[in-house]
Formats: sequence, structure tokens, C-alpha cells
Amino acid sequence: MNARLDPPTVGIKPLRVVIDGRNQDLIEVIDRGLQYGDGLFETIRIHAGQPCQWRRHLERLMLGAGRLGIQPPDPGILEAEVLSLTQTLDHGVLKLILTRGSGGRGYRPPESSAPRRILLTYPLPPDPEPSWRTGVRVRYCQTPASMNPALAGIKHLNRLDSVLARREWSDPAIAEGLMLDPSGALVGGTMTNVFLWDGNRLLTPPVEQSGIAGTVRALTLELAVQMGIDCLETRLAPADLEQAHGLFLTNAIAGIWPVRELAGQRFDLNRLPWILLDRVQQSAHTPG
Amino acid sequence: MNARLDPPTVGIKPLRVVIDGRNQDLIEVIDRGLQYGDGLFETIRIHAGQPCQWRRHLERLMLGAGRLGIQPPDPGILEAEVLSLTQTLDHGVLKLILTRGSGGRGYRPPESSAPRRILLTYPLPPDPEPSWRTGVRVRYCQTPASMNPALAGIKHLNRLDSVLARREWSDPAIAEGLMLDPSGALVGGTMTNVFLWDGNRLLTPPVEQSGIAGTVRALTLELAVQMGIDCLETRLAPADLEQAHGLFLTNAIAGIWPVRELAGQRFDLNRLPWILLDRVQQSAHTPG
Repeated sequence: MNARLDPPTVGIKPLRVVIDGRNQDLIEVIDRGLQYGDGLFETIRIHAGQPCQWRRHLERLMLGAGRLGIQPPDPGILEAEVLSLTQTLDHGVLKLILTRGSGGRGYRPPESSAPRRILLTYPLPPDPEPSWRTGVRVRYCQTPASMNPALAGIKHLNRLDSVLARREWSDPAIAEGLMLDPSGALVGGTMTNVFLWDGNRLLTPPVEQSGIAGTVRALTLELAVQMGIDCLETRLAPADLEQAHGLFLTNAIAGIWPVRELAGQRFDLNRLPWILLDRVQQSAHTPG
Repeated sequence: MNARLDPPTVGIKPLRVVIDGRNQDLIEVIDRGLQYGDGLFETIRIHAGQPCQWRRHLERLMLGAGRLGIQPPDPGILEAEVLSLTQTLDHGVLKLILTRGSGGRGYRPPESSAPRRILLTYPLPPDPEPSWRTGVRVRYCQTPASMNPALAGIKHLNRLDSVLARREWSDPAIAEGLMLDPSGALVGGTMTNVFLWDGNRLLTPPVEQSGIAGTVRALTLELAVQMGIDCLETRLAPADLEQAHGLFLTNAIAGIWPVRELAGQRFDLNRLPWILLDRVQQSAHTPG
């Protein structure tokens, strides 16, 4: 299907694409996912042929479907489709998209629509593993994160803010860019959640106005509480980050990225709570 | 292609679909328009086989392409494609979508991408004409409009806020719903811009933080200034609308919808500046 595209435009092609249970890589142009970004997605790490943190991804997808009023897929059918794709792949990435389907005039969804399940698998990107111990370099982005309490937290398909923020740099030495909301509050990275360690407590921005409630973010908070570490969801500004003992980023594919440098400021990775980070990193790559 | 969909899901099917100059109604699932809403669109009224206000639509598309960093299409090629579709249609709607095309890993766009032009034609919806003289009933929506200065004004594909707002009512007697931003300022309707007439001046919300710079909005401001009517882009709240002499909505398909009732409050349409409204309505449906 890509024959007519020049090689540079193809980028990383999916290994397999399955739409509503069938091998196909074309979709109706009237799908509302394309027309309005009317849908949701999950990006899931595949480890030893299994989707990691599947329950959390499924829960967030279901939560998002409830918020958008999209009929959720049957979890059994979805899981069977997911497993049939992951089982043939030792390591990799699964992207799962749920759109509201085709139809309706304008913004108004049709009264009964048939949501579409799109599954794509990709090879694992090369960068996550080395960055886990050595840390990553991070910058600030100029592009603000979009603010909307009705859309915050869920992983919907309206991701132009992250696309524009990710366009701001091409230096491969910079792993991630941090985004602020229009009021100047930290939201997260273009594809990560951010945690600040102040020596005693774990602080992270809330996801009520902006941002995405990441699966590894939830895992980090859960494990920290289990370990007796105080956690606080609170407004953070760049000035707070400057005072931090350490920072780390979370993401379903990478797990944890400790931050060794932010906008020129260096952080001593030894000051991070590695007992927690180790547990999160291990759990993030655990199937189920 | 729609054979497998149940009739209720199909909604209003396009009359024709042309992608990159070819008759086809399927698109690569890896198109960034679907993956991230990474693209733009225009909804254009077709009158007597011509696209109305074509220059304004083209300008906004080019402005949006600049903002998103999408390589703009050749205007001559685009116009030829548009005309070849509209010329066969006396009246109707043309939807033009420009996506960044396929490719790239994650949010980061590929360094060189081939943007995709998607043209769809539809029959004219039945409602615009009767509402022009009799006015429309309007409500408020609970769903806030998304706020992001980097995305405000342009007509991008991230339209979940309007989709969720439009889902809030199904009463066909209600023509439109007004949306506020997260700070409580009026942004516009789900698919319209809003104007307030205070007896002397025309007031409308700015589109710097939220909302879309509509083509008929621009036309209205331009004609009002030509006629010596003071215009002000300013923050408006529901309390301001209650005090208005009159309100009207603008949209490329309908032109102008005078508001005869908003959330139970009735407005006397005779208090609106019809000399302006008449000129806008006529110009909005003029080709070129």
C-alpha cells in the first residue's frame, strides 16, 4: 500500500495492522477518528509476547470510551485480538486505536455507531533501555499543552499540542520536551508524565485540566504509596523543578527515564529514590 | 465500501471523495490525520457550481498549514481539484481536509512528509435557509472549549470538544450550542462564531486562546467596518449575552443564523442590524 510514497515519508512502518479483526491497512476516510480525532488510543509495550500492564491500558480505554460516549469494545474480543498479535512478537509496541466509527453529519455523532478497533504493531524503538540507568536530557517546549477538563486525563486522538511540541527539536541527544499549560503550570512531557522528587515526597502535576493519566504514572503512584512514600498531585512550575533533588519521566514503552539534565541544569541521579524506580521499571514491563 | 456497516451508522454519505486527485474513499490507517488529528480542514458552501468565499478558505488553510508546519498544497492544483468537484454540483457542501500524511515515529513528524489532500462533497443540509429569517434556538453546552494559543483560530482536526458539546442535545428544535472556555469566557457555538449587537457596536470573542477564526466571521467584521459599524473583539460572558439587543451566529454553510432564543431568553430579531446581516448573507454565498 505504501508503494506510491517516497521512502523518507514512510518512517517506521507497522509490522501488522488489524482493523476490526481483519488484516487490512486502509480505513474509510469518513471515519470520525480522521474527521475529528473522535477516538482514543493506547500505546502498549509488548514483552515476551505479552502486552505489559494490559489491565491498566484496558481500564483507561474503557474510561475514555465512557467520557467520549463511545460504545466500549467487548474486552474478551479485544484481548483475544491483542494476544493474537502480540504472541508472534517477542518484543515490540502495540498501538490500539478505538474510533467512534463512520458516520454522522458534522460534529454530531450518529445515534448508533459502530466503533472501530485498530491494532498496529511496531518494533521496539532503540532508545528506552540505555536511558534507564544513564538518564536523559530534557528541554522545555514553547507549545502549550491544551487545556480542557472534559478531555484531560484520557488518551484521546486530539494530540496536535504534542505534535507541535515534538516538532520544536530534532537533536537526538534531547529525549523529551516538557510542556506547560496556558497558565504556566507544568503538564508533562510530549509523551511522558513527570515526577519530581524533593528528597521526601513524590510530586506530579494533576491531570484534571490538561495532560494524560499515564499507565506508568498510575503504577508509580500505586507502588510509592505501598512503599510508604508520600505522593502529592500538585501544581508545579519550572521554578519548582529547579529546586528538585531529582526528576524522572514515565511512559508505557520506556518505563522510567531518569532526568540527568533539564534545560542545561544537571541533576545527580544518585539522589533519586532508586528503590522505587527499580520496582516501577520492573513492573512496567510485566505482562498482565 | 460501506456494505458491512448497518444503515444507521452510515449517516450522510459523501457524494464523492477524491484523495490526492484520485477517486477513492479509503486512506492509509497510518495517516497522521487519524493517528493524532494532525491536519486541517475547511467546510465550504457550493453555490451554482462554485465554492463560496474560496479565497478566504484557501487563506485560512494556508495560515493553518504554516502554524502546523505542514507543507501547503499548490493553490493552483488544489483549486483545479476543487472546481472539478464543485462544477458538477449546483448546491452542496465541500469538505477539504489536509493532513500531514503518513509516517514518523510517534508525535514527531517525519522530516519530509507528503501531505494528503482529501476532498468530499455532500448535499446541502436542509436547515440553513429557513433559519435565516426566522432565527434559531440556541442553548449553552457544559463541555468547555479547549484552550491553547498555539492551536486557536485555525481549523485543525482536533475537534473533540465540539463533538462532545454537540452530543449534549438531540432536540432538532435547538440549532446550536454555545461553548465557554475553561475560564468561563464565551468562545462560540459548536460550529459557529457568535456576534453580539449592543445597539451600537458589534462584539465577538477573540480567537487567540480558543475557537476558530470563521470565514463568515471575518466577512462580517470586514463588511461592518466598511459600513462604519464599530466592531470589538472582546471577552464576553453569559451575563453580557443576556443584556444584548440581539445575537447572531455565523458559519460557512448557513451564512448567518439570527438567534431568536438563547437558553429560554427570547430576542426580538427586529433589533438586529439587518442592513449588515443582509449584506453578509449575500456575500457569504457568493463564489470566489
